[in-house]
Amino acid sequence: MEKYDFGLIGLGVMGRNFILNIAENGHSAIGYDLDKAKVDALNTEANEFKVKGVTALKDFISGLAKPRKIMLLVPANVVDKALDDLLPFLEKDDLLIDGGNSHPNDTERREKEIVGKGFRYLGVGISGGSEGARHGPSLMPGGNEKSYKLVRPIFTDAAAKVKGDACVTWLGKGSAGHFVKMVHNGIEYGIMQLISEIYDVMKNGLSMENSEMSAIFKKWNKGLVASYLVEITADILEKKDKQQGGYLIDHILDSAKQKGTGKWTSQFAMDFQAPMPTIDTAVSMRHLSTFKTKRLKADATLKGPVARIEEDKATFIEKMEHALFFGMLMTYAQGFELLRIASNEKDFGLNLGEVARIWRGGCIIRSAMLDDFMKAYERVPQLPNLLFDTKLSSAVNKKQEAVRDVTIQVAKAGLPIPGLMASVGYFDAYRSGNLASNMIQAQRDYFGSHSYQRIGEEGAFHTEW
Amino acid sequence: MEKYDFGLIGLGVMGRNFILNIAENGHSAIGYDLDKAKVDALNTEANEFKVKGVTALKDFISGLAKPRKIMLLVPANVVDKALDDLLPFLEKDDLLIDGGNSHPNDTERREKEIVGKGFRYLGVGISGGSEGARHGPSLMPGGNEKSYKLVRPIFTDAAAKVKGDACVTWLGKGSAGHFVKMVHNGIEYGIMQLISEIYDVMKNGLSMENSEMSAIFKKWNKGLVASYLVEITADILEKKDKQQGGYLIDHILDSAKQKGTGKWTSQFAMDFQAPMPTIDTAVSMRHLSTFKTKRLKADATLKGPVARIEEDKATFIEKMEHALFFGMLMTYAQGFELLRIASNEKDFGLNLGEVARIWRGGCIIRSAMLDDFMKAYERVPQLPNLLFDTKLSSAVNKKQEAVRDVTIQVAKAGLPIPGLMASVGYFDAYRSGNLASNMIQAQRDYFGSHSYQRIGEEGAFHTEW
Repeated sequence: MEKYDFGLIGLGVMGRNFILNIAENGHSAIGYDLDKAKVDALNTEANEFKVKGVTALKDFISGLAKPRKIMLLVPANVVDKALDDLLPFLEKDDLLIDGGNSHPNDTERREKEIVGKGFRYLGVGISGGSEGARHGPSLMPGGNEKSYKLVRPIFTDAAAKVKGDACVTWLGKGSAGHFVKMVHNGIEYGIMQLISEIYDVMKNGLSMENSEMSAIFKKWNKGLVASYLVEITADILEKKDKQQGGYLIDHILDSAKQKGTGKWTSQFAMDFQAPMPTIDTAVSMRHLSTFKTKRLKADATLKGPVARIEEDKATFIEKMEHALFFGMLMTYAQGFELLRIASNEKDFGLNLGEVARIWRGGCIIRSAMLDDFMKAYERVPQLPNLLFDTKLSSAVNKKQEAVRDVTIQVAKAGLPIPGLMASVGYFDAYRSGNLASNMIQAQRDYFGSHSYQRIGEEGAFHTEW
Repeated sequence: MEKYDFGLIGLGVMGRNFILNIAENGHSAIGYDLDKAKVDALNTEANEFKVKGVTALKDFISGLAKPRKIMLLVPANVVDKALDDLLPFLEKDDLLIDGGNSHPNDTERREKEIVGKGFRYLGVGISGGSEGARHGPSLMPGGNEKSYKLVRPIFTDAAAKVKGDACVTWLGKGSAGHFVKMVHNGIEYGIMQLISEIYDVMKNGLSMENSEMSAIFKKWNKGLVASYLVEITADILEKKDKQQGGYLIDHILDSAKQKGTGKWTSQFAMDFQAPMPTIDTAVSMRHLSTFKTKRLKADATLKGPVARIEEDKATFIEKMEHALFFGMLMTYAQGFELLRIASNEKDFGLNLGEVARIWRGGCIIRSAMLDDFMKAYERVPQLPNLLFDTKLSSAVNKKQEAVRDVTIQVAKAGLPIPGLMASVGYFDAYRSGNLASNMIQAQRDYFGSHSYQRIGEEGAFHTEW
């Protein structure tokens, strides 16, 4: 009986697409799911590929070449159960791969347990949605490097390609892969928040029509902010609603959901003392968006100015492109700085140039800017923050006036742009050699005797205020 | 041998002051510390009070009336060790009280363990610094209500008084006390950040002298923003430096430290989906402030406008008072809304009017505004957010133009006001009956098939974009 190269558990749309991707690239693969409909869906699409779906775990296990390479693509909350079910059937050196959005702490715990039992374990971030899974995602593997080598050929073939270069690399040990994927998602939250704010200003501050906005995002997608998220925004804005007519976007409720990865990013960033206010804001705005009833009530009682941008529309739109570029850059800068700090704290040994490289294709936050980031890290591998790259700092310096002007005019009009404001605040604070935090230290020493440092002196000082 | 009413472990400045406070109020108290110098310091100050310090745990234990009432005032990281040392000496129904800044999850774990062994346990937040400990702190007890009754007379006598009303009440079960204290500290971070931003603008945007700023804060302390933190800011600004001359504040390094309670507040808020962008920003700005070397480097390369406020100084200062009021109100609103949500999630049964009441005196965030909050909750006990109170919303509506104008002018001058911006962003988003989050939901469905809700319809929808 023929043995399969690769096994996949969980044949939802992501799993089905990923296994077909692998098979299309010439690796035989077997999929397992309890749900017969999902297994049938896979087998229907199998065509000439060496791929098969099964509903019996023992067929799945016995169908795999040894050492078995098994990826789980199941919801984060059932990973432990799926692993428990699987372990009794495994043999030494079999490799288990968690391809979901697991919390890095869970990945560390599971790796320890599973490796302790003589098996192999990788935590792999996968980005690109269902389309990416089928035609090339960005893959972010972490764990033991030798274990990764067992699946490297398969992953390299399955990953997205940018000019022939596969969007995958071994990132580091332990939870490095899931950590990088988590931060990817945090950045995704930030950019989505920024785009939604720009859309808000276009719609409510400039009274633009959806088709007009779509055309602008299409145009932008050829320039400074060229990116997958800008591209799909253009598509979304021109999608008609089949159910009630008009545009679909106007029928969608403004209550945003989440699966927690952005929140985890902010929580980790706080633990690692890495400032990421744009991403934090994006997370808290998702939460605020769910207060639909409260917001409607507040809308009736809390006052603001007339929501209208007074400037010439074309001029203002041009400035907004610069503002979006600026906000996106601050978001990436915050995310990459967190990766730098976390890599040191957790000893991942991340190569940030490689992270930028594998994010250039396949994933949700892919953008033209990532190419610049990759080059920035090639020039200075230990760059502490992207804002220190000469080319990027020069670009930011040229845009700061435009983003400031957009912020000012929108704040005047009372439209909410918390993400953009957080980006401006971050920039202005980061470029302050002297912040007013001396006052905070003085207050802490005043009320709590927490002591302070003096400029140019060693040691801690306390004053009887 | 005379037995003491109350025992206190940890005779640092907080512990010494708190035990003297208790003794001064007529309750006999015994203190324990391994450090003889600290014990001697207590005994020296004991005077006519019925108070004694000892260095032997057995003297401490045997000196207490039963059931023993023992409070620990030790650093958060040694609470477990201190409890372990103590437990073998205890008898059934003895009461242990953790008076430190413990993480609420630790308090829940400890309560379970200790109550399981037949003892009593309370987690009590104490705010007011060393002065408050001596002359009346705000006390925030949580845990079993019957256990609280054992110390209620002592706590009521020791607490700060506002017009004869003691700043203490039993808040709720489990970790309610430590949770409320944690949020108190989160609010404290927010207000400190806002004050530091105003100080920055006064200093760098208006070129004001320290004495002039001090006079303004003194004046403000009689009005809208009257509060302990504004009061000490005025004091700090006029403090001369004994070491090198000039003003002390100008010799303090702008690198702010923290003990984690603000961070915990933000992390919990994210878990409970309670938006608190001003507090999140304050936390991340503490982190950014520690990047002194990086900031100095960025200062040399990243460009901004001329840091100068063009408006007439007196007019602008008046607007800044309104801006500080606005920012403080947003900070409190965020904190109280988190308490509302957390109380539901964790079943604390918090009475927010009581929280406002006991924060009016003794604690670091005491302010004239808390009186208004107490009254707001008296009018509508289930008020979901302070911004829905008629009196407060009317005040905010009157200030929103001033805060907007301050934000605009400072953003134009390039000085960092991330906390103020976060407050404006929060306000403008909260009062948006329709946010642009429909775009975020559309994007999530586009790339991840995460589905969305439609306006006015039940159920989840997915589109093949």
